[in-house]
Amino acid sequence: MRRRPPTACIADFLLQQAQRRSSLLTGVQRPPPGPRGRAARWEVRVAGMSYELHYWPTLQGRGEFVRLALEAAGAPYIDVARGDPHKGRGLPALQQVLEDDRLPHPPFAPPFLKDGDVVVGQTAAILEYLAPTLKLVARSAQAHSWTLQIQLTIADLVTEAHDTHHPVGVGLYYEDQKPEALRRAREFCAERLPKFMRWFESIVQRNPAGPRHLVGGRLSYADLSLFQLVEGLRYAYPRTTERVLAQAPGVVQLHERVANLPRVAAYLASERRIPFNELGIFRHYPELDLG
Amino acid sequence: MRRRPPTACIADFLLQQAQRRSSLLTGVQRPPPGPRGRAARWEVRVAGMSYELHYWPTLQGRGEFVRLALEAAGAPYIDVARGDPHKGRGLPALQQVLEDDRLPHPPFAPPFLKDGDVVVGQTAAILEYLAPTLKLVARSAQAHSWTLQIQLTIADLVTEAHDTHHPVGVGLYYEDQKPEALRRAREFCAERLPKFMRWFESIVQRNPAGPRHLVGGRLSYADLSLFQLVEGLRYAYPRTTERVLAQAPGVVQLHERVANLPRVAAYLASERRIPFNELGIFRHYPELDLG
Repeated sequence: MRRRPPTACIADFLLQQAQRRSSLLTGVQRPPPGPRGRAARWEVRVAGMSYELHYWPTLQGRGEFVRLALEAAGAPYIDVARGDPHKGRGLPALQQVLEDDRLPHPPFAPPFLKDGDVVVGQTAAILEYLAPTLKLVARSAQAHSWTLQIQLTIADLVTEAHDTHHPVGVGLYYEDQKPEALRRAREFCAERLPKFMRWFESIVQRNPAGPRHLVGGRLSYADLSLFQLVEGLRYAYPRTTERVLAQAPGVVQLHERVANLPRVAAYLASERRIPFNELGIFRHYPELDLG
Repeated sequence: MRRRPPTACIADFLLQQAQRRSSLLTGVQRPPPGPRGRAARWEVRVAGMSYELHYWPTLQGRGEFVRLALEAAGAPYIDVARGDPHKGRGLPALQQVLEDDRLPHPPFAPPFLKDGDVVVGQTAAILEYLAPTLKLVARSAQAHSWTLQIQLTIADLVTEAHDTHHPVGVGLYYEDQKPEALRRAREFCAERLPKFMRWFESIVQRNPAGPRHLVGGRLSYADLSLFQLVEGLRYAYPRTTERVLAQAPGVVQLHERVANLPRVAAYLASERRIPFNELGIFRHYPELDLG
């Protein structure tokens, strides 16, 4: 089996990969025409500036939660690290921000977002920052708080899914911690994943505005993140996820509804969507998919 | 060595403990008089209702981040699960909320906060919810976002600190995963803790308003959480933490400043502060403190 780089060394690994390539995707997205005149609004923004998303260029990872929000809203953004190093993009541009001593609010790690002079790190904080502008959160303080709460619970499960293949340390290879990974996967498949999914199903079913969305009667970033969680789990743990989702019809339907949103469907079919692989959070190691 | 209960079974364990006791702390806090007439405001609230904090009664855990915010602000609150089961409190009251099918926004796990009919779970979401009322976050959207970002990074380190003693699973005993814990602790002590602490030190030093606080020129919940992080690390990893903090004088001074805030100092000296122990996140297993 080919050895995958340990998560903590992924920065160096990706930097080397990038240097080997002669050209990269520029990553500039044009907003597809959207409902209610939003496209016009974005065009104004494009003329001024696009959001800059900084994340490792060869994996979905945590960056994908931000990418999905930007794509679903039709927001203009540059996927910086996937751009051309000769044009000021690529991994060197990401590294430059991480190492910039003058930033008053430096990000701890990717993903982070640049919006003009504002730099925001931490997936949930980025989504909180973007959501009012992207219309991906309801206005009331209570809906705001509930959406964040769901996002943080999704993030907890994402971390646990990651830790199944790296229980002993992000600086080691999966191949160096396979017995430990198998022990951790046992609990993940039998206890943790079902427990989380029961909660997601219960909140879909209990939404007073109906089970079409997680929060109220409209799309929020929590819906997009739950979609991505299901996508990742189906890739990494197909057998276990099928069993667990059999008890979560509301989650399955919500996932399908998000997948069919025109902008999301267009994004998923595009080259902008990086395929799942064994560099990211959701890795398919069949021996860990215990059913 | 006495076996400690696995984290996931802690609910049952604590429930049994609670049933064994005849009386428990009621946990009702009276607000000490505060500056700028805040006490008067709280008195109005006390007459109406107190916040209800729900968390496992015998450990600091993640609940402590919320408790510190409430204490530092002099906010009236009931530490529900530490109260008397015969008076509608104690662990049965916590369990009742967790099992309440009618809640539209059920918490996934403790800690959670009840504020009248509003129930909020997830530590960072609870702090976000409380902070404007408790005056523990600046008003600007940017300060808001930055404070959340710091809190989420603290939470990431808290999770990693927890996982050093439970790398293979929260449903197993520490004693059943000691070799794995030692492998994980090696990376934690040598790489992860120093990396996080360099970031905390850099953001203290870079604060444009000076290194007395993390965000702007006044106390925020991020300061309180960083204080608690340092407390926990010093308890669990005294040797490693001493070495790492030698390179982080700004963090050390900020920790001391928070410890000396009159309300925080009074709280720390009170019985309301649960001592660190080997049930919580920060556990002192000398064999894992690799220096």
